[in-house]
Amino acid sequence: MSTRLDLTQDVGALTARIVDVESVSGDEKVLADAVEEALRALPHLRVDRDGESIVARTSLGRAERVVIAGHLDTVPVAGNLPSRVEDGLLYGCGTSDMKSGVAVALKLAAALREPGRDVTYVFYDCEEIAAERNGLLRLSRDHPDWLAGDFAVLMEPTDGEVEGGCQGTLRAEITLRGRRAHSARSWFGVNAVHAAQPVLEILNAYRARLPVVDGLEYHEGLNAVAIRGGVAGNVIPDECVVTVNYRFAPDLTLEAAQAHVSEVFDGLEVRFTDGAPAARPGLTHPVAAAFLSAVGGTPRAKLGWTDVSLFSALGVPAVNYGPGDPNLAHQSGEFVSLEKITDCERRMFHWLDSRPG
Amino acid sequence: MSTRLDLTQDVGALTARIVDVESVSGDEKVLADAVEEALRALPHLRVDRDGESIVARTSLGRAERVVIAGHLDTVPVAGNLPSRVEDGLLYGCGTSDMKSGVAVALKLAAALREPGRDVTYVFYDCEEIAAERNGLLRLSRDHPDWLAGDFAVLMEPTDGEVEGGCQGTLRAEITLRGRRAHSARSWFGVNAVHAAQPVLEILNAYRARLPVVDGLEYHEGLNAVAIRGGVAGNVIPDECVVTVNYRFAPDLTLEAAQAHVSEVFDGLEVRFTDGAPAARPGLTHPVAAAFLSAVGGTPRAKLGWTDVSLFSALGVPAVNYGPGDPNLAHQSGEFVSLEKITDCERRMFHWLDSRPG
Repeated sequence: MSTRLDLTQDVGALTARIVDVESVSGDEKVLADAVEEALRALPHLRVDRDGESIVARTSLGRAERVVIAGHLDTVPVAGNLPSRVEDGLLYGCGTSDMKSGVAVALKLAAALREPGRDVTYVFYDCEEIAAERNGLLRLSRDHPDWLAGDFAVLMEPTDGEVEGGCQGTLRAEITLRGRRAHSARSWFGVNAVHAAQPVLEILNAYRARLPVVDGLEYHEGLNAVAIRGGVAGNVIPDECVVTVNYRFAPDLTLEAAQAHVSEVFDGLEVRFTDGAPAARPGLTHPVAAAFLSAVGGTPRAKLGWTDVSLFSALGVPAVNYGPGDPNLAHQSGEFVSLEKITDCERRMFHWLDSRPG
Repeated sequence: MSTRLDLTQDVGALTARIVDVESVSGDEKVLADAVEEALRALPHLRVDRDGESIVARTSLGRAERVVIAGHLDTVPVAGNLPSRVEDGLLYGCGTSDMKSGVAVALKLAAALREPGRDVTYVFYDCEEIAAERNGLLRLSRDHPDWLAGDFAVLMEPTDGEVEGGCQGTLRAEITLRGRRAHSARSWFGVNAVHAAQPVLEILNAYRARLPVVDGLEYHEGLNAVAIRGGVAGNVIPDECVVTVNYRFAPDLTLEAAQAHVSEVFDGLEVRFTDGAPAARPGLTHPVAAAFLSAVGGTPRAKLGWTDVSLFSALGVPAVNYGPGDPNLAHQSGEFVSLEKITDCERRMFHWLDSRPG
């Protein structure tokens, strides 16, 4: 018996149904097949597929096109399946991050035959693992036209609040070098661990920026996330590596952020190991303003890095907005409020069913 | 065919013979059997054995008894066997550390039928590995009477110089604690790596003592030998551990050394993980003075920790004196000068063949 999704179910029941189809990163095929089948049954949508990513869209010739996106995968199941409902809360792996958002998008796809804006629905794979396997990244490289639009909503958990853009992130290794010696004759060596003192001084003295970008206040941070050094219990260490993580606001490009870190640690050996650009919130764009007025609430800055950055790189302003609770993501006790899912569906429907003013 | 040792060979040839009997720590049985057999053939010695450790001694009722000790084991062979001679140097695993010393002791045991002082020869196992398996430690606990004496010479490599006593060593972990948080919202956490700054400040500001003990100048050291901290690339670390190694002069007991480290890092979380006491050089003792005058040269302080500390704990003053080069120990290119072995044998013979003045 194939796994079928009934898009006429209410959104809470549909979320539970989707949660019960296991789809840990790299193992999304069964769920992707079910999503594709359900969408292909809707004659008002054109459906494309690339690997385990499905893209469906209306083509009504509207003045604006918006993109609604969500990932199908979850972190590994932690004894938290099948899902269960208790006191209006749906528990289970992926309920919050982010199958409730996926369920809302599927309900919208089925219900909105003639939306006021053309809509592209994107369901993608491998968001929870190494960035290079990310399905949205793959689509942005291989089929950027599938992702084209004036505005995008990534339905990651935001607790029903609009979170604009995202901060960028980069990691750098700062390497201190010394010279080995037997620790009984330590003065013949140069201690690389001791040499890390100025790095920690810089980090402790660092004052993070809180810049306002497109009306939202971001909050940067520069932190050591790891330190390691040591050869053996009787050897003066000849190397110490401090790994720092810089979270930067969207008024900086990745290159500008790297330049800032190089300047902060001027004179030290700095090597950048990875990085991902920030995304501007784009809330000043008319289509974003219409979205905000439809869904209500006060938008805030997204501080963590999310896939909105991939839309930003394609020139599509994007926000995070979803019914899940970001603080529960990746926890075995993960749950989502059924009321919040319904509320999110209602607000999104209200927005998409209206015509641009 | 059993492995036999011919103690009438010259000391260089005997060293080569012993080197060619592999005896990596824990695998000394073949060499220990050969040593026992060779010693049992000498009617002027009483021979005892415990595991792979052999103790042989004269019982002439002399006024003084001295102990000559050396370990039979080596670090793992590194493609440097069998031994070979080139330009007066004997190459191979254990040539320097310390089969040349063992060969000298065996030559003395065979040649000195009526030495001026009673002599105890100790050949023991497992010096190169974890302290708790050390054969000399086992003998000191199970047969302290076998090790009794007025003075001991440990024939570890000292390049033919007398090195008195040894410095003690202890290791302590200094743990800094913080609170985890996502690094995109770092201000919700407390960074334990950043908290290590004062530890490094203390280490960089520390001025090591150079105390004179029994006429020899020691040189202490307090160093970080390791640092580690970090949970993941996007998490504020909640723990950072700095491992420090304190090498202390023999005017301090292990307990006093621990108290010093606790005081240096006052207010921080300090846990002692291991330690071994120092040994006083004992060169002011008449028997030591006689030894020094017989072998010549200017004694110097032993800075590294050695098994002389085990003799010291039994109340036996002890020095390090051997033909090997300590800088070559544990290296694949290890060698020993054949001339230095002969010289060491001659000086030791001269000392032991004489009667106390």
